[in-house]
Amino acid sequence: MKTWSPDFLLQEFGKRMDEWVHLTMDRTVRLAVTGLNQSGKTVFTTTLIHQLLHALQGSNLPSFLVTLENRLQGAKVMLQPDMDVPTFQYDRYIRALLGTKPTWPVPTDALSEIRLAIRFKPSGLLSKRISPTTTLYLDIIDYPGEWLLDLPMLSLSFEAWSAQTFQLCEEEPRLSLSASWRHDLANLPLSRPAQDETLRRISEAYTEFLLACKHPTIGLSFLQPGRFTIPGDLKGAPLLTFCPLPPPDADGVVVGSLREEMGKRYESYKKFIIETFFKRHFSRFDRQIVLLDLLNALNRGPGAFSDMQTALEAILENFRYGPSNLLSRLFYPRIDKLLFAATKADFVAANQHHNMERLLRRLVARPANDASFLGVEIQTQALSSLRCTRTVVRDHEGRRLSFVQGIPKGRKSESLLFPGEIPETVPDAHEWDANRFNFMDFEPRRPSDAEGPFPPHIRLDQALEFLLGDKLR
Amino acid sequence: MKTWSPDFLLQEFGKRMDEWVHLTMDRTVRLAVTGLNQSGKTVFTTTLIHQLLHALQGSNLPSFLVTLENRLQGAKVMLQPDMDVPTFQYDRYIRALLGTKPTWPVPTDALSEIRLAIRFKPSGLLSKRISPTTTLYLDIIDYPGEWLLDLPMLSLSFEAWSAQTFQLCEEEPRLSLSASWRHDLANLPLSRPAQDETLRRISEAYTEFLLACKHPTIGLSFLQPGRFTIPGDLKGAPLLTFCPLPPPDADGVVVGSLREEMGKRYESYKKFIIETFFKRHFSRFDRQIVLLDLLNALNRGPGAFSDMQTALEAILENFRYGPSNLLSRLFYPRIDKLLFAATKADFVAANQHHNMERLLRRLVARPANDASFLGVEIQTQALSSLRCTRTVVRDHEGRRLSFVQGIPKGRKSESLLFPGEIPETVPDAHEWDANRFNFMDFEPRRPSDAEGPFPPHIRLDQALEFLLGDKLR
Repeated sequence: MKTWSPDFLLQEFGKRMDEWVHLTMDRTVRLAVTGLNQSGKTVFTTTLIHQLLHALQGSNLPSFLVTLENRLQGAKVMLQPDMDVPTFQYDRYIRALLGTKPTWPVPTDALSEIRLAIRFKPSGLLSKRISPTTTLYLDIIDYPGEWLLDLPMLSLSFEAWSAQTFQLCEEEPRLSLSASWRHDLANLPLSRPAQDETLRRISEAYTEFLLACKHPTIGLSFLQPGRFTIPGDLKGAPLLTFCPLPPPDADGVVVGSLREEMGKRYESYKKFIIETFFKRHFSRFDRQIVLLDLLNALNRGPGAFSDMQTALEAILENFRYGPSNLLSRLFYPRIDKLLFAATKADFVAANQHHNMERLLRRLVARPANDASFLGVEIQTQALSSLRCTRTVVRDHEGRRLSFVQGIPKGRKSESLLFPGEIPETVPDAHEWDANRFNFMDFEPRRPSDAEGPFPPHIRLDQALEFLLGDKLR
Repeated sequence: MKTWSPDFLLQEFGKRMDEWVHLTMDRTVRLAVTGLNQSGKTVFTTTLIHQLLHALQGSNLPSFLVTLENRLQGAKVMLQPDMDVPTFQYDRYIRALLGTKPTWPVPTDALSEIRLAIRFKPSGLLSKRISPTTTLYLDIIDYPGEWLLDLPMLSLSFEAWSAQTFQLCEEEPRLSLSASWRHDLANLPLSRPAQDETLRRISEAYTEFLLACKHPTIGLSFLQPGRFTIPGDLKGAPLLTFCPLPPPDADGVVVGSLREEMGKRYESYKKFIIETFFKRHFSRFDRQIVLLDLLNALNRGPGAFSDMQTALEAILENFRYGPSNLLSRLFYPRIDKLLFAATKADFVAANQHHNMERLLRRLVARPANDASFLGVEIQTQALSSLRCTRTVVRDHEGRRLSFVQGIPKGRKSESLLFPGEIPETVPDAHEWDANRFNFMDFEPRRPSDAEGPFPPHIRLDQALEFLLGDKLR
């Protein structure tokens, strides 16, 4: 039996007021999409938009409650709010993906933005009475993973950052790839006056090292400073012309020296590039999805795989609360939901998805289970933005095996392949036999079992529900 | 006989104090270099730096008083002051120009900067006693002419700017080149709600028109907005996605309409791009040189030539004083010397240089003679940053003619060519016969008469003296 105490009434009134304010005002969500090592963020953003735009025409999003409950009333592309941010080229990308000869779109290495308006009927009883239709403005911001991986530099001094980089270079593949740069460094007069040409030469050697690490055959992700490999208009500016240095000797840092100048440039990089990204963009994001290509990381072996782990930990560090975290002092990031998604789940057989998710969860679990996070809900998931294969179960030499049927990358016709199995834990050192993993890439062709007019996917609807579901109640 | 009145003494004392303050402080000059239609600004900046760096080793700069008077003590490249501005790649460009197989350097379409320190002995008697050596820091800022030609937009509303653009399109070659864009425009629902895709399509048509005007075969200069053809990192942003519109009809500007959005984007372009360039760079320049390729403008015929005139007038407008000039209200530009230089003087015979200068003076004279300039000293000059030919006088069919000997562009060996004559006034309409002008380009090879180790030039020293001489007294 209810008690209509004054407290209860006040409390109820407050709740209703909140709901009313919430509903009569249009809402905006800024969803940030980024990825590590060619994880397919352009394809993810493109298909996500496409599914939302066509959700009323019967696209297949059973886990996305607003569609399941028939409350979605339509979505369309709107003019974006920021005049000086490139527009995400949805129409160009979707034409590439769904054309008569589908191809993977060629993405740009920069931040871009698009705004959708999603009209829906709210689910609450009162809500319906107050406002039969509400609009959610969804701003999707697609940006390079390199920018996200720069954020931890904000809390590191030049010396601390240098030390961290040198430590990473003690292990392969960085040990070999950095040899030429470290050799040049050994001959550098660090306490002598800074010369423009010397700075440029050594910085070019360091940039070449980063580019070698980033090359698809190696596929490392944790590469700082991120803008060195995607400089854009700042190519050749002093703040992109430095490199980490070994610790100073007894001389310390001589005024006017090469070493001092390197430190100044590092600080300029932090100030002009990282802080600008942080203040202008990152601090305004509401939701973040980080995509990663777990299959290619496994293909590339223990070096690339452990580097991806380092990158994931560095990303999570941005959300950790603590007095040493510069970010939390600068600004409180607004992100309250963070999704790590392993893409290209369709490149393995359906019975491997479970292991794919378990493996990803293990990678993220250790840092994310820490209690000191800033109230961020973290989730992991395996998905495919655009399913290009189908799983075929066949008997093979007396065993039932799950094959994948699709058009392997670079070929013209379908093949039936056995991509192998995904381990559910991070393999131990001795388990990384040569070629243990050899997952294939596929062309973006519709698989033969796909029904309906909409591009098939795997669990894209679950990602949507996690990222947006609560905003569409 | 001198009268040592108290007034005279005070005055003399004041003068000496000024000189003392001036001399004990190091000086900085920011010299801006820009150009219209492939005028060779990268070559100009590169050779200017090279001549300064090697002036002590005997480079040939007779009109540059600080070297003539043996007061120059050396110059070197320093670290530049601005961390977030790309460095002018002097060493790369000079290698291209003076390599064993010299080539014209490939410039970048962006602003870049380099700092030189020039040590010299001051010329005054007292100066010598106070400070036997002074350093002038010379910051050279190389930027696209397109940015300079954007400045007049600051004082124009969207409607006024649109009207100006449509007026330009009434004449060839713009009339034909703009036909496709204007055709698309005619079908545009300007009073209907703005759609992202419509905006993008029509803006692409307008950008294609600008690019067609800019193409070397047409060679127009007065193309606004300048960033449409060199967008850099902002490619695809809304502020680069608009175009001029015909005047509104009786409806006026409907709220939320395509027309209103175009106007907003125009204003964003002014605010984010032009004002930023103005405040960050232009307002800090001390000296400006504008290079132009008079020969190619003549080659291209009356359309391109008159367009260059329009561009020059628009540039001069930035220095004109008046209540309607937004620039002077925003900020007082600091530039006190402005040099217009016709480059590539070595592509014609020496006896044509006089006409080249007269023609240029006429182009600039009309607006520049106006008394209402902000105390800017304006000069015109013909020069060659890197002389690649020599003039050979020969009797030809009974007449003495001046030929030019050099390696024509794209060829391997020297030829003797008769480039023809430059008119000393702007040709009248009937004088523009087909192919009246046909000046050739040449490869950057040292001509056979060039003496000494330094790259030969024509009147580069006069340009240096005008731009820097007073700062090196």
